[in-house]
Amino acid sequence: MKVDTNRRLVVYAQDEFGTGRAKTGEGVIRYGTSQVVAVVDRRHAGRTTEDVMGIGGAIPIVGTVQEAARFGADSMLLGCQFTGGEMPESWRQDIISALNLGMDVINGLHDFLVDDPEYAALAKKLNRQLIDLRKPPDKLPVASGKARDVDALTVLTVGTDCSVGKMTVSLELDKLAKLRGYKSGFVATGQTGIMIAGAGIAIDRVIGDFMAGAIEELVVENSPGLDFLFVEGQGSVYHPGFSGVTLSLLHGTAPEAMILCHQAGRKLIGKTGFPIPDLAKLAGVYESLAAIIRPAKVVGIALNTFGLSEDDARVHIEEAHRLTGLPATDPVRYSAECLLEPLEAMLKTRAPKAELANPAPMRT
Amino acid sequence: MKVDTNRRLVVYAQDEFGTGRAKTGEGVIRYGTSQVVAVVDRRHAGRTTEDVMGIGGAIPIVGTVQEAARFGADSMLLGCQFTGGEMPESWRQDIISALNLGMDVINGLHDFLVDDPEYAALAKKLNRQLIDLRKPPDKLPVASGKARDVDALTVLTVGTDCSVGKMTVSLELDKLAKLRGYKSGFVATGQTGIMIAGAGIAIDRVIGDFMAGAIEELVVENSPGLDFLFVEGQGSVYHPGFSGVTLSLLHGTAPEAMILCHQAGRKLIGKTGFPIPDLAKLAGVYESLAAIIRPAKVVGIALNTFGLSEDDARVHIEEAHRLTGLPATDPVRYSAECLLEPLEAMLKTRAPKAELANPAPMRT
Repeated sequence: MKVDTNRRLVVYAQDEFGTGRAKTGEGVIRYGTSQVVAVVDRRHAGRTTEDVMGIGGAIPIVGTVQEAARFGADSMLLGCQFTGGEMPESWRQDIISALNLGMDVINGLHDFLVDDPEYAALAKKLNRQLIDLRKPPDKLPVASGKARDVDALTVLTVGTDCSVGKMTVSLELDKLAKLRGYKSGFVATGQTGIMIAGAGIAIDRVIGDFMAGAIEELVVENSPGLDFLFVEGQGSVYHPGFSGVTLSLLHGTAPEAMILCHQAGRKLIGKTGFPIPDLAKLAGVYESLAAIIRPAKVVGIALNTFGLSEDDARVHIEEAHRLTGLPATDPVRYSAECLLEPLEAMLKTRAPKAELANPAPMRT
Repeated sequence: MKVDTNRRLVVYAQDEFGTGRAKTGEGVIRYGTSQVVAVVDRRHAGRTTEDVMGIGGAIPIVGTVQEAARFGADSMLLGCQFTGGEMPESWRQDIISALNLGMDVINGLHDFLVDDPEYAALAKKLNRQLIDLRKPPDKLPVASGKARDVDALTVLTVGTDCSVGKMTVSLELDKLAKLRGYKSGFVATGQTGIMIAGAGIAIDRVIGDFMAGAIEELVVENSPGLDFLFVEGQGSVYHPGFSGVTLSLLHGTAPEAMILCHQAGRKLIGKTGFPIPDLAKLAGVYESLAAIIRPAKVVGIALNTFGLSEDDARVHIEEAHRLTGLPATDPVRYSAECLLEPLEAMLKTRAPKAELANPAPMRT
């Protein structure tokens, strides 16, 4: 999936901005290159995104799609999830309004806009685009483990659960690596990452047999010429619903190092009631599973401390460091520096690929 | 997916019967309830399936679909895979011939017959069915771990690799359990199993997010009133392409016990070059991964010794037993007895579900 990221965007987050279910919208505001001209959420109409979430500066929040259109938007991103199985009727009306107001509509949900005859007909009539970020490529390979052989140092974010900040950590590391002069890349594996990076594959929407193959192909295609390739992780091997997605991503990526991500204070996996194991144990599980394809260590812990006081954040970070013996931080609140450092050290001491095959002349 | 299994079937295995790439056809001959009236494979025309594979008795092998039709077939099963990406033109002609000769066509491949406009139009005109065994249900849930709570003792076959006999072992155990008077069921998770059982979901064709949910739903729906539920395993956690499918199946099933399946003598995973670890280590890996959702032991080793001499088969079985300390056998060559016994013992000593919640009155 490729998507133009030079847009004037409305983020549609009706009743959900700041609730935790508007991840796609919030991610694009925080990291995207498109200009977000307005957010739709009637609960916060009249305020700014900075007021509500501490991000995005003076982006206005408005109550309706019609009001949002006045800011010169060319596209509307469905930036949140809805609860329950079917899309609410009010969303349908808002999507139709956006098309009628001259906008493309961009969707990250499992159900595709292009499969809806009403949207499809209207978009065609108005010459607007319907963009389904999760739509996988038509043909994908079965993974063979070949991502082990790429030149770039591949780093996968792994997690205790969904929605703990894996994409964010990968983006922060990529940003810092570039700042430090490295050739660095980011591989998006979810709808929000794709909307930010402009390319990628939503791995959780791929058919089982081809999940690992899809990510393997992305890693192989994106790594040439890079020092670092940061791959956005998904799910958790401890999540009963998504563990298979996580393992496919781990084996398809065949990373050289991992960063373990966690939301400070969270004790249970999603809404399942399953407990999150301690970080040291979980790091060990990811290392054993990675080793099936390629040995890789967890080299740092990234904690999401959003909403915690400064003191509480520090306590959680110190605790994570103490439990695992690894560098730990919240790379959004502070800096990704202590997570990048072990990766820089690995890059300096590792042999270039060509020399690995022929161990005599080591780079020092 | 549900499919009528009371058919007069032609198994289409052109150039592949007995090569190892006609698993679906061979599985249906061995375990299906449909009557196989002929096999199409020009390389063996004039012989019987018994001559070539030692299965199926006097089922004639013929060179063309036209000849096969003379045996009064009402359906043709595409019973083998083809190599390379696109279906060969000769298959297309044979599918069209089968429809014109009054047969339904049943397909277990990833690409669906119903999506092909030429087949779809012809089948409609002739009032024949196109049945795509791998077609998943439209709506599937995300797994929550609820298969832990079913009454039946759920047993999942896990493996060192693909195509080592997981479906076969599950079917043999189900058959023996029924012979011994237990209420037993089989859950099909692949195209061949579906064609044999008449129902199931091809788990490797399901979208990542819903793989575990699909199998969880099957287990919950199929278990009421049963003593044993045997779930057909898929892939291997050591396969770089399919490990995620395997883990989804493990976590969705949440089995109470596992049987580890292996093809005697196989050293490498598929065509990947990755080594198969020793059986004791692999049993431990499956047990650790199962325990994320529900503790479960590997209670026996099933070896596929097809093609080995009697002496070699015995040597491999003894070696597997020695390495793991577990009962080991080839349940097709000999009997599934020693694999069922530890499961019968578990059933006898376990408390019924209602009592597990309230530990006082144990069943003895």
